[in-house]
Amino acid sequence: MGIGKVRRLGVLTGGGDCPGLNAVIRAVVKTAVRDYSLGVVGFENGFGGLLQNRARDLSEKDVVGILPRGGTILGTTNRDNPFHYPTIVNGEKVFRDVSDRVMENISIHGIDALIIIGGDGSLSIGKELFEKGLPVVGVPKTIDNDLSATDQTFGFDTALNTATEAIDKLHTTAESHHRVMVLEVMGRYAGWIALEAGLAGGADVILIPEIPYSIEKVNAKIMERFESGKKFSIVVAAEGAKPVGGDMVVQRMVPDSFEPVRLGGVGNLVGRQIEEGTGMETRVTVLGHLQRGGTPTAFDRVLATRFGVASVNLVMEGKFGEMVCLQTPYIKSVPLAEAVGEMRVVPTDSDLVRAARQIGISFGG
Amino acid sequence: MGIGKVRRLGVLTGGGDCPGLNAVIRAVVKTAVRDYSLGVVGFENGFGGLLQNRARDLSEKDVVGILPRGGTILGTTNRDNPFHYPTIVNGEKVFRDVSDRVMENISIHGIDALIIIGGDGSLSIGKELFEKGLPVVGVPKTIDNDLSATDQTFGFDTALNTATEAIDKLHTTAESHHRVMVLEVMGRYAGWIALEAGLAGGADVILIPEIPYSIEKVNAKIMERFESGKKFSIVVAAEGAKPVGGDMVVQRMVPDSFEPVRLGGVGNLVGRQIEEGTGMETRVTVLGHLQRGGTPTAFDRVLATRFGVASVNLVMEGKFGEMVCLQTPYIKSVPLAEAVGEMRVVPTDSDLVRAARQIGISFGG
Amino acid sequence: MGIGKVRRLGVLTGGGDCPGLNAVIRAVVKTAVRDYSLGVVGFENGFGGLLQNRARDLSEKDVVGILPRGGTILGTTNRDNPFHYPTIVNGEKVFRDVSDRVMENISIHGIDALIIIGGDGSLSIGKELFEKGLPVVGVPKTIDNDLSATDQTFGFDTALNTATEAIDKLHTTAESHHRVMVLEVMGRYAGWIALEAGLAGGADVILIPEIPYSIEKVNAKIMERFESGKKFSIVVAAEGAKPVGGDMVVQRMVPDSFEPVRLGGVGNLVGRQIEEGTGMETRVTVLGHLQRGGTPTAFDRVLATRFGVASVNLVMEGKFGEMVCLQTPYIKSVPLAEAVGEMRVVPTDSDLVRAARQIGISFGG
Amino acid sequence: MGIGKVRRLGVLTGGGDCPGLNAVIRAVVKTAVRDYSLGVVGFENGFGGLLQNRARDLSEKDVVGILPRGGTILGTTNRDNPFHYPTIVNGEKVFRDVSDRVMENISIHGIDALIIIGGDGSLSIGKELFEKGLPVVGVPKTIDNDLSATDQTFGFDTALNTATEAIDKLHTTAESHHRVMVLEVMGRYAGWIALEAGLAGGADVILIPEIPYSIEKVNAKIMERFESGKKFSIVVAAEGAKPVGGDMVVQRMVPDSFEPVRLGGVGNLVGRQIEEGTGMETRVTVLGHLQRGGTPTAFDRVLATRFGVASVNLVMEGKFGEMVCLQTPYIKSVPLAEAVGEMRVVPTDSDLVRAARQIGISFGG
Repeated sequence: MGIGKVRRLGVLTGGGDCPGLNAVIRAVVKTAVRDYSLGVVGFENGFGGLLQNRARDLSEKDVVGILPRGGTILGTTNRDNPFHYPTIVNGEKVFRDVSDRVMENISIHGIDALIIIGGDGSLSIGKELFEKGLPVVGVPKTIDNDLSATDQTFGFDTALNTATEAIDKLHTTAESHHRVMVLEVMGRYAGWIALEAGLAGGADVILIPEIPYSIEKVNAKIMERFESGKKFSIVVAAEGAKPVGGDMVVQRMVPDSFEPVRLGGVGNLVGRQIEEGTGMETRVTVLGHLQRGGTPTAFDRVLATRFGVASVNLVMEGKFGEMVCLQTPYIKSVPLAEAVGEMRVVPTDSDLVRAARQIGISFGG
Repeated sequence: MGIGKVRRLGVLTGGGDCPGLNAVIRAVVKTAVRDYSLGVVGFENGFGGLLQNRARDLSEKDVVGILPRGGTILGTTNRDNPFHYPTIVNGEKVFRDVSDRVMENISIHGIDALIIIGGDGSLSIGKELFEKGLPVVGVPKTIDNDLSATDQTFGFDTALNTATEAIDKLHTTAESHHRVMVLEVMGRYAGWIALEAGLAGGADVILIPEIPYSIEKVNAKIMERFESGKKFSIVVAAEGAKPVGGDMVVQRMVPDSFEPVRLGGVGNLVGRQIEEGTGMETRVTVLGHLQRGGTPTAFDRVLATRFGVASVNLVMEGKFGEMVCLQTPYIKSVPLAEAVGEMRVVPTDSDLVRAARQIGISFGG
Repeated sequence: MGIGKVRRLGVLTGGGDCPGLNAVIRAVVKTAVRDYSLGVVGFENGFGGLLQNRARDLSEKDVVGILPRGGTILGTTNRDNPFHYPTIVNGEKVFRDVSDRVMENISIHGIDALIIIGGDGSLSIGKELFEKGLPVVGVPKTIDNDLSATDQTFGFDTALNTATEAIDKLHTTAESHHRVMVLEVMGRYAGWIALEAGLAGGADVILIPEIPYSIEKVNAKIMERFESGKKFSIVVAAEGAKPVGGDMVVQRMVPDSFEPVRLGGVGNLVGRQIEEGTGMETRVTVLGHLQRGGTPTAFDRVLATRFGVASVNLVMEGKFGEMVCLQTPYIKSVPLAEAVGEMRVVPTDSDLVRAARQIGISFGG
Repeated sequence: MGIGKVRRLGVLTGGGDCPGLNAVIRAVVKTAVRDYSLGVVGFENGFGGLLQNRARDLSEKDVVGILPRGGTILGTTNRDNPFHYPTIVNGEKVFRDVSDRVMENISIHGIDALIIIGGDGSLSIGKELFEKGLPVVGVPKTIDNDLSATDQTFGFDTALNTATEAIDKLHTTAESHHRVMVLEVMGRYAGWIALEAGLAGGADVILIPEIPYSIEKVNAKIMERFESGKKFSIVVAAEGAKPVGGDMVVQRMVPDSFEPVRLGGVGNLVGRQIEEGTGMETRVTVLGHLQRGGTPTAFDRVLATRFGVASVNLVMEGKFGEMVCLQTPYIKSVPLAEAVGEMRVVPTDSDLVRAARQIGISFGG
């Protein structure tokens, strides 16, 4: 495996699935095959396929029709870190570094460079593989839009529209029944989806991890509305929202379940506290996996396509250890070493947050 | 209040909200005002408005722009049965018949006939009011499509499309991650939404109240798929689905919550049992209130409009105590006394169920 | 080719494409393979593939993922009638009966029965082939919903929703600019799409082939609205709408074009006449092919699936020369000989038309 | 009218309508009323209302429910430039400067500042009014996204998604029938919608004003695809696309029409030339007004809301003669004098265009 002439490219997708992954794969294959006459090998199910040699050649024919389709034709997984791989030794699970196997398999397939499409976890592994000598290029993927090195990631716009449509739907029930409707959306550490969907959907209260909330303030806002004649309210909560002085609302064990049941995500917790505090009928919807699916929006398809093309260009320019990124309106690249581990959270003094406050949205804090 | 010449019409919406209610109201107002030169009074929040005299005149101007909007501009509620109305007597809640107040208020407003848009509960009240002497016409509303006297009710088609789109979205994650995705949809006593959305979305397992399921059969189906190379499965469960010999999965009390938490709806229960039984990663989504919202589909808008027009025609023909209904392709009417209490469940030997079985869908029973 | 034991099934799609075709193909393949252990052969591009022996085996794998996708994986065409097949003889185009070639090819492929999914044209060919001895079963397809033998055909509901969404979109521009917006939709001989989309979208004028229009009445309606303060109007016209005493608006030749340009479909004609007659700014949109595309609605997927299953059942019951149909809520069958050539137009005294009139919609006649 | 303390704000919308206008109006009203306790006056139908004193007070109640709705509740028009206002003098139309009337009416309403939401034309008028002494703040609106002073304008993202969905729909017909489908989209001077929708929809040929096309190259691309087995092609053309050495395809007069009929927009022209040049069946769809309508996407709602809030902030900071703009991720402002007249066209060497070429898209030049 030299960084000489590139003839054959590997590609894999890692981490949670996300609308736009297929658009990246398609662009990688088309650019590699048409523009540079490269061969392309796809590894299945993230790093698992790289370790277990589950791979297949990808031609233009394999990517026909996948542009508008969510998910990834290569499969993906959150497991199988080659530097921390679970093995059973003497009946106990231990974690070992099996990254040498990656290097061997890359060599077996005659691959000159590997494009990793993944989130912070997958790109961290990519960085380590690069440091180990593998010519790696990264494509950032995070539906939460919380990667600091790029203005935006694909998948976010689709999730945002899904969440906004959900708020639109809840609005009619809220109004008709004079209820409080709580919608819990994704965003464990960064509240982008909750903030922007809340703005787009006309929410009255938005709870995000960056601004710890006081349930008293939330209820005060709802009561203020009620007393001014607005008999319903819409609350959007990021799953990582937390009360002042508190932690993210964790899942609790329920005796007869074999795993922690998501009994009280923040949506359910806040919903109960609103009903108790205001006496108003309150209903909770947890949007969950619906945010990951569906056909990508135009923006996400365009961004994913640009990322895919740019990642092959990086390979051909020998710029390994880099990750493509959006610096509006340009596609650029940054070193993986700088990109990973840097989270982009909502600045609490950003004009987005201020604009929300100015039109009367409460953050509960 | 005589059944003489009709000059003034009352209208209210009762029960859970549903896409198409506004389309009915619009058609009632337009037909009454344009075609028959009647006045129209809308009561707010179901029978509550009728009891508390919260009413407003409705002109054509009031219904501009509401055709494509979900919910009801009149408001609605599941409470406030005039024949069983809660009152606090000596600190205790007792239920009384306050239906005389309805008759008085109808008289005060000079109303000659009342159109009630509602589900089984509201129409039963309508039947009692009719028997008490009120000239009532009913418009059936049930998102579950479980009313026997009409081929279909508005709202169902919209809910069905929402559920189908949800399955489409879950499909990509299921495939990409090789998971089992469980979707819980509405349908407490009748499985129409689960059955048709399952057919439309390409589900592998459909659980409906009419066919008690065996979790072993469900898991066998999923494993059979897995072993034939299909590493994912989609399960759609009506909220009223129940195991063989069991009851509808009830909500359990959780110690620190002030009300029964929907800990283990059938979706969560089945999800856990699939994960235990097959060892496959399983994720559960409860669609909930999203099914009630949104802009109605073309079908629902047309049906709701036809129902609205027909209900005013019934009034003008003096056919009180009747309910409009669809007998494809005609709009007809049936006596309320026959219509209420008759539930239309999925016939287990219907060609719909047989077709589902023939293409390989399992009902777990 | 005997009507003995069926082991191998042929299937083709003919005529214009339509959402739901793939859902039928999928159901045919799944039912044939799973439930009856048959082989399935798909012919490409309608009767063309049958004549030129372009065929391929269809397994369950070939129909994975096609349920939500518009169009037909088999391809289709409006040409290639085996009883009237164009050939060049001495430099001139003549039409010949080449249907014997169909019988030979069916025999070559060892096919015991043929399922034809098509409109009136394709099913007429099917009827002739059946009379010639081929065991044929038909599945009706017409996006215009104008086949008399079935309550509804798949594709119609999707087209209807596309047209309704288009009206929703035009509404905002009409209102904001105080314009008349004209939308031309499909419906050459039957006005179902225009009528139902007009009802669902809140149109003010609906023009359908069944009710010849007077442009004076159309303009009078628009002016009446204008004078009552409604400064915009929405007109929906079926492409086959025609003025009183006139013919369908034909296409005119434009000198420098190599084919008749659709200069003045009825939409453009009416648009100009409204602008002239009322002095109001008028804009015309021709929806065209957008009505044929897109992912099918839930209703269309379910109906298409039921039709597909039922067509294989007909084959296994030996009921050849029949066509599946919907007699709500049942799937039944009727002889092809009765089904073809019978058009289902909008009854001008139907309750649909009357309801439209009652809420103030003008038909211009 | 002094630039002293602001107590009362005027707002109007000018030019073609666009999704997001209502979201701006809502944010202006909410920010003005809630955060700054200002009064707000809305002028109807652009500058026309300002000249004819058609105005109404806007309270929070007036903007309830308008966030997800396209169009503008204030009405808009492309006419009524106060500096060039048509008047009939001696039976002839002459244009006069009536801008003094604007100043008077502003004074009559006691308005301290005017927010103009409009495109290049409306903002140019705004600049002139500012130079005349009126405290003006601008909000840019152009669905074509061709304003140089801002990264993006609201409405574009919605139009882009509408165009992309249209391509998705045409795809299935193209494939099923082996046809060439041509889609004409908006973009008179800048090809952003065609370029990005083409990328997002997987077009094979994209024609934009910035890259004059050769029909021979277009046809060569289509034939190359055909010969490699791809029997269909998708062409997206901006309405302003023009052939090498040619002009924008103009509308021609047709004898019996009272105004120029859009006989041969570029879509129809190119469609005919493709059919002639390749012999392949070709169909043309002109998307037209559908691109202006519909509920705005989440992005457009958020951007419009931010613009609305920021415009009121500019007023309160006394920054008149400025226009709000997006400099990702910030909302900033620029002088109107710099902003108007500067068109943002697609740079032909941008990475967007290069990416499109790398995955095999032809621009015909």
